[in-house]
Amino acid sequence: MKQYRVLIDANDEKGLVHKVSTIFYDFNLNILSNSEYVDKENNKFFMRSVVDGDVDLEELKSAIENILTQEATIKVVEPKKKNIILMVTKEMHALGDILIRHEAGELDANILAVVSNYEDLGSLVEKFGIEYKTISHENLSREEHEEKIIEYINSYENVDYIVLAKYMRILTPTFVKAFENEIINIHHSFLPAFIGANPYKQAHERGVKIIGATSHFVNNDLDEGPIIAQEVVHIDHSYSWRDMQRKGKDVEKIVLSRALKLALEDRIFVYQNKTVIF
Amino acid sequence: MKQYRVLIDANDEKGLVHKVSTIFYDFNLNILSNSEYVDKENNKFFMRSVVDGDVDLEELKSAIENILTQEATIKVVEPKKKNIILMVTKEMHALGDILIRHEAGELDANILAVVSNYEDLGSLVEKFGIEYKTISHENLSREEHEEKIIEYINSYENVDYIVLAKYMRILTPTFVKAFENEIINIHHSFLPAFIGANPYKQAHERGVKIIGATSHFVNNDLDEGPIIAQEVVHIDHSYSWRDMQRKGKDVEKIVLSRALKLALEDRIFVYQNKTVIF
Amino acid sequence: MKQYRVLIDANDEKGLVHKVSTIFYDFNLNILSNSEYVDKENNKFFMRSVVDGDVDLEELKSAIENILTQEATIKVVEPKKKNIILMVTKEMHALGDILIRHEAGELDANILAVVSNYEDLGSLVEKFGIEYKTISHENLSREEHEEKIIEYINSYENVDYIVLAKYMRILTPTFVKAFENEIINIHHSFLPAFIGANPYKQAHERGVKIIGATSHFVNNDLDEGPIIAQEVVHIDHSYSWRDMQRKGKDVEKIVLSRALKLALEDRIFVYQNKTVIF
Amino acid sequence: MKQYRVLIDANDEKGLVHKVSTIFYDFNLNILSNSEYVDKENNKFFMRSVVDGDVDLEELKSAIENILTQEATIKVVEPKKKNIILMVTKEMHALGDILIRHEAGELDANILAVVSNYEDLGSLVEKFGIEYKTISHENLSREEHEEKIIEYINSYENVDYIVLAKYMRILTPTFVKAFENEIINIHHSFLPAFIGANPYKQAHERGVKIIGATSHFVNNDLDEGPIIAQEVVHIDHSYSWRDMQRKGKDVEKIVLSRALKLALEDRIFVYQNKTVIF
Repeated sequence: MKQYRVLIDANDEKGLVHKVSTIFYDFNLNILSNSEYVDKENNKFFMRSVVDGDVDLEELKSAIENILTQEATIKVVEPKKKNIILMVTKEMHALGDILIRHEAGELDANILAVVSNYEDLGSLVEKFGIEYKTISHENLSREEHEEKIIEYINSYENVDYIVLAKYMRILTPTFVKAFENEIINIHHSFLPAFIGANPYKQAHERGVKIIGATSHFVNNDLDEGPIIAQEVVHIDHSYSWRDMQRKGKDVEKIVLSRALKLALEDRIFVYQNKTVIF
Repeated sequence: MKQYRVLIDANDEKGLVHKVSTIFYDFNLNILSNSEYVDKENNKFFMRSVVDGDVDLEELKSAIENILTQEATIKVVEPKKKNIILMVTKEMHALGDILIRHEAGELDANILAVVSNYEDLGSLVEKFGIEYKTISHENLSREEHEEKIIEYINSYENVDYIVLAKYMRILTPTFVKAFENEIINIHHSFLPAFIGANPYKQAHERGVKIIGATSHFVNNDLDEGPIIAQEVVHIDHSYSWRDMQRKGKDVEKIVLSRALKLALEDRIFVYQNKTVIF
Repeated sequence: MKQYRVLIDANDEKGLVHKVSTIFYDFNLNILSNSEYVDKENNKFFMRSVVDGDVDLEELKSAIENILTQEATIKVVEPKKKNIILMVTKEMHALGDILIRHEAGELDANILAVVSNYEDLGSLVEKFGIEYKTISHENLSREEHEEKIIEYINSYENVDYIVLAKYMRILTPTFVKAFENEIINIHHSFLPAFIGANPYKQAHERGVKIIGATSHFVNNDLDEGPIIAQEVVHIDHSYSWRDMQRKGKDVEKIVLSRALKLALEDRIFVYQNKTVIF
Repeated sequence: MKQYRVLIDANDEKGLVHKVSTIFYDFNLNILSNSEYVDKENNKFFMRSVVDGDVDLEELKSAIENILTQEATIKVVEPKKKNIILMVTKEMHALGDILIRHEAGELDANILAVVSNYEDLGSLVEKFGIEYKTISHENLSREEHEEKIIEYINSYENVDYIVLAKYMRILTPTFVKAFENEIINIHHSFLPAFIGANPYKQAHERGVKIIGATSHFVNNDLDEGPIIAQEVVHIDHSYSWRDMQRKGKDVEKIVLSRALKLALEDRIFVYQNKTVIF
């Protein structure tokens, strides 16, 4: 008996659950869990099922496609380790958290490599026997720099996700388009408050009583991609912006790892710059 | 077009979702939302669907019963205001919160009456045009006192839930059995810590850094019934137990109202002294 | 023995705690609690002491003034009920929460009156024997309308705070200036995200995973005043903006009451559009 | 200019703040921050001041001792890295979090060594150039095993704290007494709920909706020492106890690091099996 994850993203129409569950029944699949969401306003239907049995992935996918009277996005996968590449700059906390989870076997992923524009984090990454690739941006235009990174990433086959674990440079539309809905970022703020540079300074200036972090897919507009996970912590007047930053790091790493886990478990649908998460 | 809530609590077997969704299809019902949970360990299946269409409730229920090869608990209801009776002693915060929600039209319930063993809260309740019934326990055995309350409650038809909004007396098995899984309590503690009397004093004594509240159905063992909702707040050494109590009241009223809302929306299954909540 | 609260807001200089505590010692006052905060960047000193003993308030205040080599803001008060006026529009949840706390004796305040631009909430307020004053804005310019409200408020002596318990009109600089740092607002958003109208619609549009509420003093810029308290709750994709609004109400009322309590206990300093809270 | 932390734990008496601040004034020390707490019920006074200036530590301490009319516990220290030894068994998450913080320079501590009863975590620890000492308990009585550990710990001078980062064996009173209020543990539960073995199984059995973790000093009674920090996360019926355990790990590591940070910054007083934390 194997397990399969079936994800369907379609326009809503009557009988969808019936039709899909009939296919499962015909394929002799047992439903272990099932989540559905209908966005009435936009007439959208989302379904994620975990089933067990023994089928051919492509046959199952075709069968589902055939009973739908419309075009839909259908994904049928077996749970297995996904391939990820991390991108970092100089900060250690988010990267370190992912490395330890990976080492502990908590993370359902292979870390293919860590890419950075600085050498600083190389010695940490290499302790774990993971390739660290420095691609400096010095003397390069943004486009030239990214071209080199894309080339490096593409030297790996089957990269599922690129995780920006505090990569502090803005990506161009070209880069983003090359990996649509595959780039997961951690923004050091409770978006949409404090978009842009040094949100902790902005938060301190504004005198807020809560700070947070947001993990999201990256799209063309800086900090505007679909939100996956958010978390906050309480602070008070005694926090300097550096204290906020220190406290914020704990939130950042937890939120990024939470978002990554959701992606690795195929739990996220993206539509209209938002996420549906089961 | 009407809306219906369908709740199924059965032993798990292959094809249940298929069978039920076929019935929905045959009855020309559209699924608005659908939640399922399978407890593999105990081989239990839970499903809650919200559908719209136009059917006879009893016919739909029979049709579902007929396709199940086993005994199961099936509930088919239209969303409508449920009837509740509140029981209180002397504290105002939980009662007041429910009265205001009721007055604001936020609560999907008719408050039939408020029962207390003291007169104290009568003037508040009567401001809202709701019957307040004092049934003193003085000079009565626990059994005699409860008998009077049961008699009073039974003078109303169709009581859906009894809400203990800080009713500070322990109920006997007789009382509990008379309203199984229909009595919702708020316990002023994060159960199972600090079971029993004055949990805030116990919490202060122990020097905890978080206090909480728990809403649960009442069963025979004091504070041991199925938990519906819990919430906490952070405290520090400067809190006396009275400060904790004051701060705890906010948590208590929010948690009780949250649990009540879940019950009024038919979202709770009870089994093995636990809840499944969709 | 009486209790006094002493609040000092001054430029920082060496020996301030020593000097003030010497005064307390000379006046035979016992320190029950003491909080200090120094903002090094802006060279500001804040101190709040609760002391007991038996002194003349003015004499104590003068003595402290005399030992300071600079101008400072010094406040010496006995704990007693403050006078507040509530302003509302049509929503009941924040008002209701304050009314119940007042009725329960939880609130260290006298509610002098509730002012609204609509009649809707009058019947609720009058249940509690509190004056409800409707001042309609119809056929009036904003200035004319506010003039009437100011006139009404000024018909009461010694109003300590004006609490905007979901008063949905923007106040002019004239109004705000008349009651500087005395107007407490609840904003139905986690500021500075979603400033302005219908933040829940904005939040839904953006697909956030957390919503919140902010209580702040009102200044000339809409939603830009010094923040007193903030709180959040988690949501998911299944929430419509109306669901968010409903869930948000619980946060709003809790945060507003928390901020009001801090004000009533003389715990808030305001400077540079921020608060220091002890 | 140097910084000093002054901690005073004494019986309460009138004029203590005055007396201490006079000493600071006489020593030409500037108060940067100051926290006091009076436990009226037990007549206890706690004070933590951060001051800057240039003094002899012992002279300052003596001066404070001399003005107190009673015995008191006085601590005067310069902020500097403390020496810690970690004890672990087989789980990586809490240890890994501390190692990464240490590597990132976030932790104000030198990790002298990591001691374990198993070899499993040695390769991780040694990646970071930190000594890993396996002291197996096999074929040893509990006393013999602990004797070896104590001997090993005592081979280091000036150990400030022993951090049990998921050390899964119960310590004897002898061990605990040897390092009173110096052993920091992380308990994988929201104490005092679910004391003892496998709290996640207990929590699952009970059907709770929140799980948590508690960091505390270790005393003779298992899980009964003074609590330093606690945190919780929400769960639901779909969590198996292993899911709870997985989710709980994030809370455990955050809470342990938070408690350790408080200890390293000399912010914790212990009395009557509770903590006062500034």
